[in-house]
Amino acid sequence: MHKPEIPRATSPALIDALRARFGERLSTSPAIREHHGKDESAFPIAPPDAVVFPETTDECVQIVKLCAAHDANIIPYGVGTSLEGHVLAVHGGVCVDMSRMNNILAVNVDDLDCTVQAGVTRKQLNLHLQHTGLFFPIDPGADATLAGMASTRASGTNAVRYGTMRENVLGLTIVLADGRIIKTGGRSRKSAAGYDLTRLFVGAEGTLGLITEVTLRLYPQPEAASAAICAFPTIDAAVRTVIQTIQLGVPVARCELLDSVTIKAVNLHSKLGLRESPMLFCEFHGSVASVEEQAQTVQAIAKEQGGMDFEWSTKQEDRTRLWQARHDAYPACLRLKPGGRAMSTDVCVPISKLAECVAQTNADLKGTTIPIALFGHVGDGNFHLAIVVDPNNPHDLEEAERVNHNVVARALSMGGTCTGEHGIGYGKLDFLDAEHGNAVPVMHAIKHALDPRNLFNRGKVVRYAG
Amino acid sequence: MHKPEIPRATSPALIDALRARFGERLSTSPAIREHHGKDESAFPIAPPDAVVFPETTDECVQIVKLCAAHDANIIPYGVGTSLEGHVLAVHGGVCVDMSRMNNILAVNVDDLDCTVQAGVTRKQLNLHLQHTGLFFPIDPGADATLAGMASTRASGTNAVRYGTMRENVLGLTIVLADGRIIKTGGRSRKSAAGYDLTRLFVGAEGTLGLITEVTLRLYPQPEAASAAICAFPTIDAAVRTVIQTIQLGVPVARCELLDSVTIKAVNLHSKLGLRESPMLFCEFHGSVASVEEQAQTVQAIAKEQGGMDFEWSTKQEDRTRLWQARHDAYPACLRLKPGGRAMSTDVCVPISKLAECVAQTNADLKGTTIPIALFGHVGDGNFHLAIVVDPNNPHDLEEAERVNHNVVARALSMGGTCTGEHGIGYGKLDFLDAEHGNAVPVMHAIKHALDPRNLFNRGKVVRYAG
Repeated sequence: MHKPEIPRATSPALIDALRARFGERLSTSPAIREHHGKDESAFPIAPPDAVVFPETTDECVQIVKLCAAHDANIIPYGVGTSLEGHVLAVHGGVCVDMSRMNNILAVNVDDLDCTVQAGVTRKQLNLHLQHTGLFFPIDPGADATLAGMASTRASGTNAVRYGTMRENVLGLTIVLADGRIIKTGGRSRKSAAGYDLTRLFVGAEGTLGLITEVTLRLYPQPEAASAAICAFPTIDAAVRTVIQTIQLGVPVARCELLDSVTIKAVNLHSKLGLRESPMLFCEFHGSVASVEEQAQTVQAIAKEQGGMDFEWSTKQEDRTRLWQARHDAYPACLRLKPGGRAMSTDVCVPISKLAECVAQTNADLKGTTIPIALFGHVGDGNFHLAIVVDPNNPHDLEEAERVNHNVVARALSMGGTCTGEHGIGYGKLDFLDAEHGNAVPVMHAIKHALDPRNLFNRGKVVRYAG
Repeated sequence: MHKPEIPRATSPALIDALRARFGERLSTSPAIREHHGKDESAFPIAPPDAVVFPETTDECVQIVKLCAAHDANIIPYGVGTSLEGHVLAVHGGVCVDMSRMNNILAVNVDDLDCTVQAGVTRKQLNLHLQHTGLFFPIDPGADATLAGMASTRASGTNAVRYGTMRENVLGLTIVLADGRIIKTGGRSRKSAAGYDLTRLFVGAEGTLGLITEVTLRLYPQPEAASAAICAFPTIDAAVRTVIQTIQLGVPVARCELLDSVTIKAVNLHSKLGLRESPMLFCEFHGSVASVEEQAQTVQAIAKEQGGMDFEWSTKQEDRTRLWQARHDAYPACLRLKPGGRAMSTDVCVPISKLAECVAQTNADLKGTTIPIALFGHVGDGNFHLAIVVDPNNPHDLEEAERVNHNVVARALSMGGTCTGEHGIGYGKLDFLDAEHGNAVPVMHAIKHALDPRNLFNRGKVVRYAG
């Protein structure tokens, strides 16, 4: 199955045909191509040969059919916030920018669901929902498109309570490699009708088809929400607090760990003046009484673990400031090294292994000369290292590679995964082999069954060459 | 793709080879074959040619390899509580009874997960968990095996709060058609590593491989639980109560509707003496305060809708009696017609359509001469009709067929599904086509990729002949 990938040049005739059909919505300008040839990873830019901007599912069908006729790679593109080179045109081809497909097609308030075009972003959706009493909770930080989030099986800070995209996509409209349109799933809350194609395309990173519409679960805006922060003498104490909270069944909505390096960066970036020690940021959703009860329970647990400076607030502005700071942890870390770029690791382990995994990782980091911040969604056992490198310094890159390999090997040895929420993309192909062994050929077989000519996002997730 | 299925006789040489390997754990006795040739549906018995009882995954590999060498159909079997003929040997073959693979392999209390062999039943697991503070919530009523529940994507009364098997299977060990063993998923709470093979096998009804081990999410036993019942003047009023409860975000753990026919049957069966009008049975999980708050909220909503006789109890014995009565609704309905068998429908619709769907269904039932009870998991929009027929009376069977077709057509026209939790099996193949149209060939392509010779559970889910 491991045939080498053969780069295939995109035919000029295809570009002509796309231009004839899409006019100014087909671009080959170097600036547009460069912009679409990178994401938020530190991989070198790999621009596509052209970028096309469809407005309807039928236009997507036309693009897929034209690309198929010319054997060209098709790269679905949201807003380029992926972290493993997902949108890089490492085999050339046509980038399909979904940003003009940004209509919210239906919001069914009574059913707590909605259907959106692929290019709608999560913030756009939540703004639209503001006055309905509902919201879409999945929040990876970046204002990604909802089809992009579905494609990488994204999650983020709210997953401990609301699940990931896996649990929250009810159905999809997809253009397949032969131009057929299929609808998977549906609007009923559950179904046992046939193979779960929805879950197959969620997390397929655009390698099996082009998602054009997404139906999503929505949730009632909580009657009350409160945020709490607490400092700890050690990371271990913070992690133990989280484990006990989950085990007690406290329905915490968010539960984030930031190590002292991250707090330092966040203080620099957001002027928060927090104590530079490991901290937990938590959020509670529920009735007024339940939110207070949850906060009290967590405070009691934290106190036993030596927690300090416990603060909590139900004020929207306090919560927004806090979570903005948390979401800015990634850019904030860039301040630790002027001109630096961050490489992010993304392991997730069974929560009982989290303290040990973090401790061993910290021990491993002791000898490094580059800034490395640790933060993440500890309620799920998922944490990131933001490794800040000078992309022109081979020593930095080597060091980052070593740290990344070590943390993945450690997580796998503990029954964890190489990626909790970022995906495989182009950067974690070897790790997928290490993690899933002989299940990987089954993924190849599925890729071959659905996209026999390897048209969709070549070189990502599976090495299969077609 | 719709090649007709060609029944293939099971070779005597295969039976000999299996007997040589498994001795008394291979049976061809008529009684054992008959027992394994039926489930809880009303379909005629279709016995397999032999039944084999493996004890390890490696023995399953040997069975699959032998069956493959002789081109024999392989039917995975749990306890035979499926409802759409899933385990019927409509193409002959070898039934693999997993009941001896009933070891609980690991319970990780700190991680809230466990790994069990395929033949462990849900009640066996929960008994084993009793003193750990954890439980496995998915409860389809029958004491099914956990691999069987995974295979049909089962859910039941707790799904409104805890999800279905889709959300609660973390990983699987599977023997593929060529005898390879793969492990899907893992023990971390979330992962974005490659295609979601776990979700592909969950709900595949044994047509893609033989599940031998299941890793499951567990939940903390709630600090407090309470049950509430309430009678309503109309089904519509009961359904409106449920819709408002869900929309308010009350985290109700169970929320079941029983119509007056069902209550009559349940009264007969369980001597409950309930008012013979539509009723809601609810359960709340949480802290002591939160459970009381939830019950009060639902009572207030119910009152506005004309709810009567609201009762609630936190006593374990009251709750057990109530839920036993609810779970006995299916056998209880059989009392409505001596010698009868029940056919069960299983539609699920967006909850906003539920009242309309139930009302139209009731109008459709007015003319019938056979007893039909309506009950179900209204919090999910899922309800069942138990149509009690004399299996020897062609008029009854025709009438049941008509009612079933009408309710499925109605649900599909409302954006719903033909099956919320029972699966397609052998009985709903036409409905799958009606519901998923051109997504069905994609399911065929996946079946062909993973089981090209159609060894696993022929004639179920997909018509593909191999």
